This record gives sequence, structure tokens and C-alpha cells, in this order.
Amino acid sequence: MIEPRTLKGFRDHLPAQALARERILDVARRVYRSYGFAPIDTPALEYLEILTGKGSEETDKQLYRFTDHGGRQVGMRFDLTVPFARFCAQHIATLGTPFKRYHMATVWRGENTQRGRYREFMQCDFDTIGTTSPVADLEMVLVVHDLLRAIGIERFTICVNDRRVLGGVLEVLGLTGRSTEVLRSLDKLGKATPEAVAEELGGHGLPSEAVGRLLGMAQLAGPAADVLAKIEPLVAGSATGQAGVAALRALMAGATAAGVPGERLAVDPSIARGLDYYTGIVLETFLDELPTLGSICSGGRYDNLAGLYTKQALPGVGASLGIDRLLAGLEELGRLSAVETPADVFLVFFDETRLADYLRIAAALRAAGMAVEFFPEAKRVGQQLKIAAKRGVPAALLVGSDEFVAGTAQFKHLATQQSTTIDWHGDLNVLVDAVHSLIVSH
Amino acid sequence: MIEPRTLKGFRDHLPAQALARERILDVARRVYRSYGFAPIDTPALEYLEILTGKGSEETDKQLYRFTDHGGRQVGMRFDLTVPFARFCAQHIATLGTPFKRYHMATVWRGENTQRGRYREFMQCDFDTIGTTSPVADLEMVLVVHDLLRAIGIERFTICVNDRRVLGGVLEVLGLTGRSTEVLRSLDKLGKATPEAVAEELGGHGLPSEAVGRLLGMAQLAGPAADVLAKIEPLVAGSATGQAGVAALRALMAGATAAGVPGERLAVDPSIARGLDYYTGIVLETFLDELPTLGSICSGGRYDNLAGLYTKQALPGVGASLGIDRLLAGLEELGRLSAVETPADVFLVFFDETRLADYLRIAAALRAAGMAVEFFPEAKRVGQQLKIAAKRGVPAALLVGSDEFVAGTAQFKHLATQQSTTIDWHGDLNVLVDAVHSLIVSH
Repeated sequence: MIEPRTLKGFRDHLPAQALARERILDVARRVYRSYGFAPIDTPALEYLEILTGKGSEETDKQLYRFTDHGGRQVGMRFDLTVPFARFCAQHIATLGTPFKRYHMATVWRGENTQRGRYREFMQCDFDTIGTTSPVADLEMVLVVHDLLRAIGIERFTICVNDRRVLGGVLEVLGLTGRSTEVLRSLDKLGKATPEAVAEELGGHGLPSEAVGRLLGMAQLAGPAADVLAKIEPLVAGSATGQAGVAALRALMAGATAAGVPGERLAVDPSIARGLDYYTGIVLETFLDELPTLGSICSGGRYDNLAGLYTKQALPGVGASLGIDRLLAGLEELGRLSAVETPADVFLVFFDETRLADYLRIAAALRAAGMAVEFFPEAKRVGQQLKIAAKRGVPAALLVGSDEFVAGTAQFKHLATQQSTTIDWHGDLNVLVDAVHSLIVSH
Repeated sequence: MIEPRTLKGFRDHLPAQALARERILDVARRVYRSYGFAPIDTPALEYLEILTGKGSEETDKQLYRFTDHGGRQVGMRFDLTVPFARFCAQHIATLGTPFKRYHMATVWRGENTQRGRYREFMQCDFDTIGTTSPVADLEMVLVVHDLLRAIGIERFTICVNDRRVLGGVLEVLGLTGRSTEVLRSLDKLGKATPEAVAEELGGHGLPSEAVGRLLGMAQLAGPAADVLAKIEPLVAGSATGQAGVAALRALMAGATAAGVPGERLAVDPSIARGLDYYTGIVLETFLDELPTLGSICSGGRYDNLAGLYTKQALPGVGASLGIDRLLAGLEELGRLSAVETPADVFLVFFDETRLADYLRIAAALRAAGMAVEFFPEAKRVGQQLKIAAKRGVPAALLVGSDEFVAGTAQFKHLATQQSTTIDWHGDLNVLVDAVHSLIVSH
């Protein structure tokens, strides 16, 4: 006998978890589509050369790689961005620009699992490619806002910044060219203390006055207009920096016009994003009730998506929903349902001789849009109801032999054990309407 | 520069294909759920020992396998049944029986690609585990029926058989124990001529009278009641065979009670299914307009799902939608849309100074449930409309500077180039209602 087990860092999704994840994926799909983003998919396996050297040394090391039956060196995708870059290089001429796509799929990283991370997880990316229009940046913010609200989250903050602001500050300080190390250090704010970050920046050989100014900037907080007013003098004389400030101003104005409440959108000059390829607006999103969870939706603008595969410059902007982190957050907040079934109604199987009648009832309820679990065995009623309650079905419908004769039925709300008698006189339409009303009213 | 390409046997899904696939997956999810099947997921990678020796010699050879970072022998799943067996052995005590699950996920097989097959494809399985009730078998038929209708297919035939019928015939012929080779040969009917199959059966050493009887049985056709009446004498004296005939009779009666039209359900004694593990009802589904496409939905009842991983006997019944084959069939029938975007309305960007107004219009249309692509650049109108038409957006909404002042808008149906003027007097609700009515009416 073989021991049934999953690999370290991998997990099964049982129905309660899978239902919660499907719900979020469904909402994300709906919101992405509502802005005209279209789905695509790419293979899980790619030529190794497509994948290596595109992320970081760390992702290279974590890559699942092997030689296939045909002797080809292949790897499993570790994100959706690198395959998308390859995809665009191949297909963008056919698809035309601007091209808006979403991609929700599994990725694999042979990470150290000590931090509670998994080696298999989903990403839900959306991007607009082939336009430098600030409207695309703005849409990214609107999508993130609509997405979180559609998931049912009301208290969150989308924190935006522009890479050019930091570029401008460095230019003014005479430190152009040091942005990579500065970005990496500033990105640690929040996890590390300002003192520790200051020390690290000093260690890179930055003058202490510059360190002070950078940290002062990164710690600016408050209403967006105030933060921008304080940033402005720090980038005086730098066209890049001023462009960044102007872009943030336009973004705030556009978001307000489109209905994003001011308290959900902040300019946060500490947002740097670790990845080198961002060149404009960058964005991170936090749950107000769980600020330490980290960003659940991050992204930004980049200049050149597919430079490794094509000479065509493909600028773009997009973000990614961290669905596993979001689900962990919702669980921590007690907002994940433990329900193990999609069924709305559990139809008890009382009487074998009435099978045809039960089938007709179940078919009529389904035709009216309800999900019905009809128990397949005429076991004891108590046992059937116990299973229904354990799974979290909201309600049970009981029609025994006598009730068929009388033209009645019992509708039982399983959480409260409250029963209602339905008089349906053998008319299926009446029964369906009554069950529907009772489900809606609970 | 790295050449952008996919591996042999793998493919990208561009928006038109991805939209068509998402639509089918969405329908399948809805239908599976309407019967109370709950989603699960399992890892793409499993310990190699879980996967090898469970399918056939062929699947073993096709398995993508390698050694991971931790020195473990691992493989990529080649179907969803083997991982589900492992899953049940681990979790069924927690989940309880009967357990109804669906699983829609990608699988990989390093197959010979000459037959137009891909090495990466999706499976959409649903199964009821832990009950021998014939109601679960019946539900399988009902799910398949509802699924195809919900996809929009009206002309199809679900062909059922029962493995015990063949077992009974062999018993009567004194050939018990020869079922594997007989099944494999009979399974070729339809692809091979009856003469070729007869020759193959003779080659296995079966007496010619037995071969004649088997082929006669396998070629029975016509109304289910007639076919069953002709099978009955062939299994006279075999309890197994009679149980098979009775099960098929009960299944036909139940399906009729639940509303399945007779012409969509046939008893076809040639349906054998290649896989050894089926023990009762087996099922294949064909499009009447494309009989040579092969079965698009197949399944059956088995005795022991997880025998390799647990001593607990887990009987079950379930089927799998062959989504790639179905999509190929729909394409061949000209029933796949070439639309490349989920957008209902394309909002033309006329006038940069009106950006805030466009954002408000787009937000209001989205809040009313419409998917809106707002073009991110104020390019020439003709160019914007050309892009919208090429992608297949049904309609465009045009509001130029003068129209904002006049409180009007143009709604343009892009396929017919027909325009309608909307008088909205600056009232967004009026505009939204008008656009919604015009979309619905087209």
C-alpha cells in the first residue's frame, strides 16, 4: 500500500477552501472583464531559457526545471509576467495595442517553506500593454478599488507612489544611479525601523544629509494633497521628479472623478516595490484592519515588458491580486465561510417509491436557479439532516409519503432548526416559488 | 535576444479561445454546483510513486517526471482521478460520505503530438464517492444532460451501458475471465469494421459462435426498451447480467422522470470504455451532428477508487467533460464566437478635457452590470472604432464635446454600423438605461 501524502510545500484544497477561492476568482474575473480585460492562458512549462535570468537570482534558484522526453531543458513558470512577456513578443502584432489581458493561473517556486509559504500558488494578474496613457494607470487603481469592494472589503487603502519621484529626489541630491540600492533599502521601511534603514543607506556610502532627506520623504503621510505639496520642493529642478508629482496629482483627481473615496487612496512615498522594472506609478494595497498582512494587490507601470524577446518597445501597466494572502487575511478576520457545499437546499430522500417525485422536485428547483443536493440513499432522516448541517447547507426540504398525499412539505432552516410548512397542493410551481422565497428571506 | 516560442505540444490561449473556454468552464461549474458537487483542488506535482502504475504503461511512459530540489522523485499529474484517489484516502474521514466533488484543472502527458493532441490540457471531472446507490448513477446522466443543454447544445446522445451486461453474456458463453481482451476489442467498434473486430476476437481464441453473439449484442440499436428486451435472453441465467439489465432499466425510467427526452438517451451495448476499473454503468456522449468527433463526456461506476492508498473500499460514480474536444467540435460546427474581448460597450475617448466625464459614464455603466472598454488615448475616432470592431465589441458609445453640451450621445452597433441618438440631458441614469436597452435589443 502506498502512503497517501502531498509533497512538502504543496497542499490539497478541500471544499471549504476551494469554494472561498473560487468565489474570489469569480469576482476578480467579473471585475477585470467589466473594464474590458480579456483572458489569456500560457503553458505551465516553458523552454528554460525563457524563464531563467528574468526574475532574480532567487527565482532562478527556486525554478522547477528538468529535461523532457525530447531532451529539451524546460521549467515550470514561477510567475505570470515572464510568460506574458514571451506571449506578447509572439502575438502582439496579431492582437494589436492597446491590449488588455488578465491571467489567473498557478505558478510554482521551490521556496523555503519555513515562512508559511507554499511552493504552488495562484496569481491573478491584469495588465494594459502598448500605451503610455495615464488613463491606463488610473484604470489600474479603479480596478483594484472595484475588486476589493466586490469581494466585500470596505476598509482598505490603495497606496500609490511614482518611481520618478524618488528618481527626482536622487537627481536633486546628486545621487542619480544609486536608485537600485536606495529602492531596496527604502522598501524595508515598515518591516525594519527607520534607524535601521538609515544605517543601511549610510552603509551604501550615502551622505547623512541625503539619508535624512530620503527618510523624511519616505515617511511623509497624511492627505494626498499635503503629501504632494511637501514632495514638490524636494524635486525642485528635476523634470523627472516633477513629472512624477504631476502624474500622482492627475491620478488622484481621476480617481476622485470616478468615485473612489479619498480615504481609500493615499500617496505613500515609501512605496518603492522591490522589482527593478517599474518606471512610473507603483501601487500597494493594504487591509486597514490587518496592516501587517502586507500588500494584497500590487503593481505599477513599466517601460519595456518584452525587451528580452523582441525589439518592439512594449510599455504597460498592471497589477496582481495576491489571492492566497487575501484568503489568509479574510480567514484571520473571521470572514471566511466554513460551508463545504455550494448547495442551497438539501432534499431529504424519505421514500424509495417516491424517487420519481423527488427527481421532479429537484429538477424544478434547479431550473429556478437553486443548487439542490438530493441525498442518494433513503437513510434515516436524522442521519441525512446531520450530514446536511455538518456541510453547512442552509436549508432542508422534507417531503414524506404522507406529505405527498397531503400536498405539503417542510422547509427547515438548518442553523435555527426553524421549520415552515409549505402547502403546494401537488403544484411544483407553487413549491418552487415557496422554497425560493424562504431561501431569500433567510 | 531569446526567441519567443512555446514547447512542442503546448500552446498559448489567445483571448478568443480563452473566452470560449472560460464560458464552458463557467457553465460546467454552475451545473455541477446545481447538484451539490463541491470544488476541490490538488497539487500539479505529486510524489512519483503516487502516479506511476495507476494508469497504463502508456501513461507511465508519458509522465513528466523529475527530481526536485529536495531530492524527491516527483511527477506532474496526468489525470485528475489518481490524485483524487490519493485525496480521498487522506481526507474522506474528515469529509464524510457520500462525497460529491468536481475538479477542473490542467493535466500533462508527454504524448506523441502527431494526432493533433496537446501535451497540456484541461479535465473537468465530477464524482460521487462512498455510495452504491443507483441514484448517484442517475445523477451522473442528469448532470451530463443539463451540462450540454446549458452549453447550448440541443442535438446530442448520451449512450449508456452496464459492464455487468457484458460480464453476463461472457458468463453465459462460458468465457468469464476473458472480459479485458473482449472489452478492448469491442471498444474499437465504430473506429474499426465489425469484421476486423470479429477477426481480432477470433485471434484471441474465442469460438466463432461466441464472437457472433458478442458482435450481435454490441451492434444492437434502436429504442432503449427494444435493445434491453433483446439483451435479456443473452444474459438469461446470469445474475450479474440480469442486474446490469435491471440497472439500465431503472436508469432509463429515472432519467425520463427527471425530464430527459428519450431521443437524447440510448442503451448502446458497444460502449465498453477502455479502462479496467469500471464495474457498473458506463457512459459516453456524442454530438449528433459530429458523430466522428468521439465522446465529449465519458464516465461510469467503479468499485474501489483508492485501493492503492487505503483499505477503505470507496465505490463511486462520475464522468469527465472533454473540454478541448468539445471546443474543437463547436469550432468545426461554426458555433464558436471569434470575439476577442468581454466588453459590451466601447466608450470612445474624444476629448481630453472631458476625461472626468468619461470616467463617470464608464463607472455608471459598469455599476449597472455592463463591461465597458474605455479607450485610453484620445486618438482619431475612426481609428478607435476600427479597433473596437476588430475585437468584436458589439457597440460603441460616442459622446463628443458638442454632445456633452447638448446632452446627447451616439450609440453605434458596430456590426451593422447603425446609430441611435440618445437624449440623456446630462442625467447619467437616463444614459445608462438607454445604453442597457439598446444592448439588450441587439
